[in-house]
Amino acid sequence: MQPYSGTFDNELKKYKKIIDKHTAGYIKKREPALLYDPSRYALESGGKRIRGILAVLGYKLVNKYKFDNKIFFAASALEILHLFTLVHDDIMDNADSRRGRMTIHKKWDPNTAILSGDLLVGLAYDSMLKVKFPNLREALLEFNDALIHVCEGQAYDKAFEDEEKVSVKEYNIMIQKKTGKLIESSALIGAILGGANRNQLNALSKYGKLIGKAFQIKDDLLDIIANEKELGKNKFGDIRESKKTYFYVTAFETFGKKDLLELKKIFSNRKKTETEIKRVIELFNSNGLIMKAQDEISSLIKAAKKSLSVFPVSERLPMELLADKLEIRTF
Amino acid sequence: MQPYSGTFDNELKKYKKIIDKHTAGYIKKREPALLYDPSRYALESGGKRIRGILAVLGYKLVNKYKFDNKIFFAASALEILHLFTLVHDDIMDNADSRRGRMTIHKKWDPNTAILSGDLLVGLAYDSMLKVKFPNLREALLEFNDALIHVCEGQAYDKAFEDEEKVSVKEYNIMIQKKTGKLIESSALIGAILGGANRNQLNALSKYGKLIGKAFQIKDDLLDIIANEKELGKNKFGDIRESKKTYFYVTAFETFGKKDLLELKKIFSNRKKTETEIKRVIELFNSNGLIMKAQDEISSLIKAAKKSLSVFPVSERLPMELLADKLEIRTF
Repeated sequence: MQPYSGTFDNELKKYKKIIDKHTAGYIKKREPALLYDPSRYALESGGKRIRGILAVLGYKLVNKYKFDNKIFFAASALEILHLFTLVHDDIMDNADSRRGRMTIHKKWDPNTAILSGDLLVGLAYDSMLKVKFPNLREALLEFNDALIHVCEGQAYDKAFEDEEKVSVKEYNIMIQKKTGKLIESSALIGAILGGANRNQLNALSKYGKLIGKAFQIKDDLLDIIANEKELGKNKFGDIRESKKTYFYVTAFETFGKKDLLELKKIFSNRKKTETEIKRVIELFNSNGLIMKAQDEISSLIKAAKKSLSVFPVSERLPMELLADKLEIRTF
Repeated sequence: MQPYSGTFDNELKKYKKIIDKHTAGYIKKREPALLYDPSRYALESGGKRIRGILAVLGYKLVNKYKFDNKIFFAASALEILHLFTLVHDDIMDNADSRRGRMTIHKKWDPNTAILSGDLLVGLAYDSMLKVKFPNLREALLEFNDALIHVCEGQAYDKAFEDEEKVSVKEYNIMIQKKTGKLIESSALIGAILGGANRNQLNALSKYGKLIGKAFQIKDDLLDIIANEKELGKNKFGDIRESKKTYFYVTAFETFGKKDLLELKKIFSNRKKTETEIKRVIELFNSNGLIMKAQDEISSLIKAAKKSLSVFPVSERLPMELLADKLEIRTF
């Protein structure tokens, strides 16, 4: 990490605070409570607001006009769309907790979670449509493309659950769609609304793709090494659910025959003992995969920052800082 | 019904055919199959395409420009959005069949149905965003408003399941949101894209609200009187699920004490015998509710057609014909 002035850090914190307020307070209606209570619960769940911050930074980085606060509606829209994916994914993954709280389908029921997720899509679009900028249609095309990609990514994720072997290439496609695309789109949407040119969009697309990939590998890593309280959910969920994470797919390329056989055997059963879970982590660790993941994240972040070189040094600093923050995040 | 020339009927059929083709063939992608196969299955399910036809008719009725075929993308968007609501509603209602075929959550599984429904929202927006007309943002606001209303309506519907008494007023709010709004929005979106003025939009909004209400009461009626094969699903589903239909809520205003008590008793149990279901229909019939529903549908359709009086006689005929078709539909 390079040294940044505290000013940039404060800038990111300021944006996060505004996006938090926008998002958490988005719903004014109360009826029907069966729909709005759980939806509000989702909006108030906090989170890092990375996608929203990226939209603001993308906008600011290229904006040729006077800064317009309406960009925060686009930022919130991205956060709300992200929340929708979490609510529905949690049903499909049968997850109990999220951000330190019960998931909606557990606190209420699956039907309520389906419906609240659907409403969140509507609210996300509602927020986007408030941004009456000249390039709104182009921004909406990107926004919707992200929605479609997320569905595809989640479908791959589910399909991979039933396969013993998933290649690194397949894993990369899955995480690019499930996680990477919305992160990339966030930076792009901000930039599109700011009137970016093709060259700027290409640079931000590259940046977004790289930090998006780093973000997901870090997610896979945190499932193993995080502090559970900070993480806000149970650790080892990916192992428990036999998820095809960075670690599992990389094992096929790096493990010896014996270790791979053992890993596959443990993963073949959805009901794993605590000893088996511990053994999986040991296997990942002794084969150097924890270190390998950390190295991969580092080089992705480095490459992401490099792709910002088309922008003036002084202006790209907040985005570089954000990338560094993603590398060292602990939840 | 007034006599129409066969030309208008052919016009509606022509639109339906184009919308069918647009909608059924919307997906070109094949991967991941887990997502695209069930979504394509939904798109190919046919249906009356009333919402799509309304959009085309609304557009044509007010359009000041050269007729642009892109309007069919808006029409398809409305159909796809409608299909999304069916896929998710069928999960929540635990429905086995729809349009004569197995529902997605039965043919695949609930998670696949959640995800396919989510994708359909994305495809619906994708189709809307292809309509690069000057008033696209206004049309999208209406489109999204419909999405939000549908969620609210479904939530009321679910909430009412646990209540013994639902007033006619509450029922009207529920069906206006769950069914009426998207029908109204369909006519409005066509008109907005055609450059309608406020006066024209008001007339079409009134028309849409009235036929939307008639449409839902007819739906409730068909659940009792339809030919099952034509209907494409099992009859009496509403009674079986203790749904708060037109008949149930009207019973509270028209039944004597004894009949109402009997109705409430049967509805209090989700597991009903065939004899009990037959008895409910008998109660509705002997209290004149079947006739009352038919009368109500007739006067709603009549009022709907009257609200079109701001448009020249020759031009409003297709929309009048559509209203009449809704009144006499058998599925």
